[in-house]
Order: sequence, then structure tokens, then C-alpha cells
Amino acid sequence: MKTLPGFRDFYPGDCARRNYILTTWREAARRHGFVEYDGPVLESSELYQKKSGGELVGQLFDFLDKGDRPVALRPEMTPTLARMVAARERDFKKPLKWFSVPQFFRYEKPQRGRGREFYQLNADILGESAASADAELIALVVDVLRDFGFTEQDFVVRLSSRTAWQKFFAGAGGPADREDEFFQIVDKAERIPPEKTDEALAGLGVAGLTAESVLAFVRDGEPGELAPVLENLKARGLGDYVEIDYAIVRGLAYYTGIVFEVFDRSKKERALAGGGRYDRLLHLMSDGKVDLPALGFGMGDIVLENLIDDVPAARERRDAWMAKQRACDVYLVIAKETERLAAVALVQTLRDTGLRVDFPLTETKVGKQFQAAEQLGAEVAVVVGDEWPEVKVKILATREEATVPNSGLADWLRTRQKEA
Amino acid sequence: MKTLPGFRDFYPGDCARRNYILTTWREAARRHGFVEYDGPVLESSELYQKKSGGELVGQLFDFLDKGDRPVALRPEMTPTLARMVAARERDFKKPLKWFSVPQFFRYEKPQRGRGREFYQLNADILGESAASADAELIALVVDVLRDFGFTEQDFVVRLSSRTAWQKFFAGAGGPADREDEFFQIVDKAERIPPEKTDEALAGLGVAGLTAESVLAFVRDGEPGELAPVLENLKARGLGDYVEIDYAIVRGLAYYTGIVFEVFDRSKKERALAGGGRYDRLLHLMSDGKVDLPALGFGMGDIVLENLIDDVPAARERRDAWMAKQRACDVYLVIAKETERLAAVALVQTLRDTGLRVDFPLTETKVGKQFQAAEQLGAEVAVVVGDEWPEVKVKILATREEATVPNSGLADWLRTRQKEA
Repeated sequence: MKTLPGFRDFYPGDCARRNYILTTWREAARRHGFVEYDGPVLESSELYQKKSGGELVGQLFDFLDKGDRPVALRPEMTPTLARMVAARERDFKKPLKWFSVPQFFRYEKPQRGRGREFYQLNADILGESAASADAELIALVVDVLRDFGFTEQDFVVRLSSRTAWQKFFAGAGGPADREDEFFQIVDKAERIPPEKTDEALAGLGVAGLTAESVLAFVRDGEPGELAPVLENLKARGLGDYVEIDYAIVRGLAYYTGIVFEVFDRSKKERALAGGGRYDRLLHLMSDGKVDLPALGFGMGDIVLENLIDDVPAARERRDAWMAKQRACDVYLVIAKETERLAAVALVQTLRDTGLRVDFPLTETKVGKQFQAAEQLGAEVAVVVGDEWPEVKVKILATREEATVPNSGLADWLRTRQKEA
Repeated sequence: MKTLPGFRDFYPGDCARRNYILTTWREAARRHGFVEYDGPVLESSELYQKKSGGELVGQLFDFLDKGDRPVALRPEMTPTLARMVAARERDFKKPLKWFSVPQFFRYEKPQRGRGREFYQLNADILGESAASADAELIALVVDVLRDFGFTEQDFVVRLSSRTAWQKFFAGAGGPADREDEFFQIVDKAERIPPEKTDEALAGLGVAGLTAESVLAFVRDGEPGELAPVLENLKARGLGDYVEIDYAIVRGLAYYTGIVFEVFDRSKKERALAGGGRYDRLLHLMSDGKVDLPALGFGMGDIVLENLIDDVPAARERRDAWMAKQRACDVYLVIAKETERLAAVALVQTLRDTGLRVDFPLTETKVGKQFQAAEQLGAEVAVVVGDEWPEVKVKILATREEATVPNSGLADWLRTRQKEA
């Protein structure tokens, strides 16, 4: 019996590392005024066929349920978000600033940075077309990564514009219905020889388009609609985290305006995050019921965790968080087995005050109990023994000791905690 | 486009209510020295066929993945736990006290208290056969529910013993291989006429067994192996939360010792939680690789949420938690649009100190901005206007006002927060 390929078990250490990422995502999003929502893990398959993101449809975990409904494990959140907002649009004031930390499922080849399941922070702003919304969204991307301990030395947000490329394409005489093909070519232009790009462009039948003109625009394209976004981010002091890079076009067909991807500066990893504007998607997905400008991004946990492992400051910050999550505050050592019931009563009293308390479930040598206390990261050991109804208290880090009546122990620990 | 039957959308309010339950579960389990783990949402279908819990196999969301593997959405956690522990048993000191808050999927008829997906707190103790482990587990069940604001007036843990019923059955001459059938009959004995029970018992061909003898044992069965568990729970002051009730046998075949179910006292709802010992299951599931005594319970979110809605003290506690989760601490009112960039710089400064800050993304009437601040539950409104570089601060609850230089605002707010 094994875990399926591309799926993960979360043993306690793995689970704590996952929870660190989910918690940090949530705190950053909420600090920026985003509110959390979630949708079902299983959706009607049709929901994913409406959007022209053809690649994801081929990667679905889809099947017929016992009621013969075509269903699929969610591969992304945008269709669910569109469905939910379309159903209850009037209940919420615009703009909506919503986030979620869903798990997604895609049948892809498992490799570094990519499994068949992963978590993603998804944040979206719905109902605002101004550039200030784009800046607000990108500020969240930057601040989330800063919260993990990364600096402008570690990552960069590459900003681009579908609008700029659309103008470029139309200016060269390109027809609107072949835009998507053109974006696919631009997406590859920096990674393949110019001759190949020229060949692909020739297929579009637009006379003036050459690899040279495309690469020149990648190099020299001027900020255009990106200028107010950059200005806003600079006012926030986040200018060093952003670069214009017209090589970014994003794979999915539904983007309409500003698009961006986030990369580690070392270029060792896949994109950390990506997103952009999709002003027409809600209209399309809701059969015209809702028409809201929109933008959003996704940031996956797998590449992020790789980068945390690679950057010492980020690793230290995670380790410090995990140490605070230690399994127990107080370990109760039962040195005299006949006092076990008195000891469990004391355990209950301490837990009722909010302390994390553990103790041995059966008779155990005192030395082994102290070992267990150390291994669990306990701050304090309390010994129930011959002194009962008094107990010995031992601060494990400092070896400091005290003898306290058991009835006063909870107060004693609280006072000590306040002083520390 | 609709949500699948039995599945839930979590709009922001629903999501907060869900998160309240998940957070409360996690905090209670950790206070009791349990550590969190998780497994994959999708597992090999075979994993669920090994166990004799036939009912769940018929309710699987199962299918062939794109690699022709038979896979299933997890309907329960025990098989995953057994698989994980069998794979790395030696890495962990016994006893293990592990918990998880997984989402499960079962194709059942949706009705009050039951959907096709739900969350469950699962807590297990592995590697300890002493009754003190049973008491420790049941203490967690009780304390979790107390954390939600329930008292002994609201719920009761009904304790029973498979061992006692096994002895009863064997004492009457019942053969071991028909025990499971006998348990099914006991399970129904209080709900159907005694004649029906007699009929069913006759089918077992054990001369001395009658409805009368079964019901007498339900009524008069003596504590037996439950006595030390009860004594332990009484020492903790939790005696009023527990009752012996031999009518409880639990449906699943794999239980071996103590079993229990938790019910609301009003009897309006399905069971809130259920569990027991399954000392032979890990051996069976791991093909003999691991042999650990074990016990655990599951507590679902749907019945629990119904009961929270029904019990005023529990509802108030949830509402207080949700109020603290408010969308923002500070709402920044931009009264002078030309100062927008200065305002967003201030937003960034405040967020960097950990405050939750929101503001209007485009020019908005000041009155509307104050409305938004109230609706978001902001504590403080900060007005960027003609006074810039000073700002006006307004405490929304008290209408108290102050004028502060923008550069000193973060400190001013921090001092105020400390004083409050």
C-alpha cells in the first residue's frame, strides 16, 4: 500500500511545514483586507470546460459519480469563484477582495516543483478596473513573500501587459482572432532560435512581424499602462521588487490587461506565482449574468517550500515558527505511580488554563519521562512524587527549580509566563 | 452551473464558521499533547477494501485515474493512518498521539446533519493498551466540546464495551465467527420490537439468547473494563460528561474494546462523535508489518455546527470569535484624492507593523468611505486630507478623535492598542 504518485503524506514535521505556509498566506492576505472563502473540492466537470484554458482540461482528475454526473477534482479556483460570485453577486459590496488557500489536483508528470496535488494561495479583486487594484494585488504578492523572510535579493515580480502586446500585434496588422496563437509564440520567443520564431510568425500571415521586431519589443517596450502601477508600488516602497519584462505573456487565453509572474532571482525554480487581469472571464463563465472587471493571482506551495529550504533567512524564520508550535508547554512527570489519579487531575487543571500538557500514560522510569519532556520541546517539567500535595517544577532550559503546592501551580506558571 | 448535491460553498461567513470549528479542534487537540498529521485526499481504492467496514466501500467516490489506477476520495482516515504508520513506525516514539482535521467524501443521501463531504476531527493514540489511554482520548472528546461552550447539560459520552458483549455472547455459547452479526442485532435492539430481536437472535442458533437477556444486559451490565476509565475521568472532574450505555456497539467490525458515542442531550441530532479501540486493525491493514494497540475517534463538523446554532452559549462564543476575525483594524479614508500616493504609502507602513488595513481603490465620497469602514468592522478610521502630513484618527466605537503626524501614526496606534 503506497501513496499515489504525485501525492504527499504529511507526517507531523511535514504537516507543520505545510501549516506554516498556509498560516503565513492567510495572515498576509487578511492584513491586506482580503477575506477568506472556499469552494468544494469536487465540481461539475462542465465548469472547467467553459474556459478556454485547454491545458487544464486534459489534466483533470475527472469521472462519473454514482449518480452518473461528470465531476472533477478542482484543478484551479477561478471557475469556482466565478460560479459563486455569479450566484450571489448582489450580496456583496464591490470591489470584492477575496482569497482562498485551496488544494488543487492536476494529472501531470510529477517532477521538482510539481506534484499531482498542491496548495495555492489565490487572491482576487473583483469589480475594480482602476490600476490601483493591480497595484494593491501586486503589493500583496510582494508582502506575502516578504513575510516568509525573502527580500528583493531573492525574488522579483516580472510585469507585462497583454494590452501592450495586443496593440503591437494589431499595429502590425494582426487579426484579433489569431492573438492567442501570437501570444503562444511570444511566450517561447526567448527560449528558441529566432529562425524558429520567424517560421512560427510566418504562419500567422502578418507581413511586418519578425522575431527581431518581437524581441525588440520585449527589450524596449515602454511602460504604457504599467506606469501607474509602478508609480503606486514605488510609493509603497516596493519598487525594487518589480521589473517590467515583456517576455511574460502567461499561457492562459483569458487574461486581458496586466499580467505578471514571480521568479526567484537564482532562477533555479519554476515561477513562484503568476496572475493578471481577466476582465471578461466572469461574463463568459456566468453566461452574461455577471460582468465585473477582475484580477487575481495564484502562488503554489511546492516551489515556495523549495525556495524556503534554499534561503537561510527564510528557513530560520520557519524554524522559529515551528519551535513555537512545540508539542507541549508542560510535561507532567509521574514519579510516584500511586499518585497517578492526582496527577491526571492536575493535568486537567493545567489544560483548562490553556496550557499544552502531556504526561506518560503508564508507569515509566523518571529518567525516560524527562527524556520525553525534552523531546517534546516542553518548557517546564512538573514532578508529582513524594512531596505531593506539593510538586517540583523544573524549567528545562535553565534547570531552575522550585517547589509549589499543586493547587497553586497554574497561577505560579501563569505569573512566570507573564514575567518572561 | 451549480454546486454538486451534498457539497458546500464556503462564502466568507460560512468560511469563518468552518475555520472556527477547525481552529477550535486544533487548539484542543494540541493542548492535550496531540500532534497534527495529514494524508492525501486521494488514495488507492484498495486501501479501503482491506478493512471490513463494508458500508463505506459502497459509498466511495472512486474511479480510474488517467494512469488506470483505481483511486478513491478518502471516506475516512484510519486506513491512511495505518498506511503511514506502517511505512515509518520506527521513526516515532510510542505511544503516538496524533490528530488530523481532514475532509471526507461519502456518496450518501444528503440530509440534515449529513452531506457528501464533511470535515472531521480525528484523534488517535497508537501503541498503548492501558485504560489510561482510553481515558486520555475521552478527556479530549469532552474538552473539545467544552471549548465550543457546551456543558454536561448539552451532551453526553455514552461508553460501552465490545469486550463485555463478547463475553456475554461467548457465555451464552455464541460462536466467535458470528459476533459481528450479533453486534448488528444489539445495535438495533432498543429501536425495534423485542419479537423482531428474538427472531434475529434465533437466526444465530444460540439457545440462551433472547431479546430479554440482551435488553437486561443493556440495562444492568456492570462497568467491567470501563471502571478504570470512569475512575480516571472522575479524577479529572469529567465524570458528569460520561454514562455507561451498553446499547452502544458501533457499526464497524474492527472495534475490539471500549467503544463510545457522543450525543446531544436534546437527542435532536445524529451522533456528534464516535470511536473506540481497534487493537487488531493496524496488524490487519499492514499485512502484519506493524502490531500496535490503538484507539481513536472522529467528530464531524456538520452535526457540531447544527448544535452550535442551537445552544445560545455556544453561538455566542462563536460570534465573539468571529468578531475578532474582523476584516480590518484600520480603514484609511482618502479625503483628498491628490494625496492618494501618500495614502498608499501610509497603508503599507501600517500593514508592515502587522495591522489589517483597507482603503478605497478609487475616488469615493468620504461618507461612503466611513460606511465601508463600519461595514468591515474597522476599529479605527484614519483620514488623509487637507491636514496632510498630519492625519485625523477616529476611534469608530467611541467617536474619539485625534490629529497625529502621519509619520507617528503607527506608534500612536500601537501605544493605544497596548493601553486597551
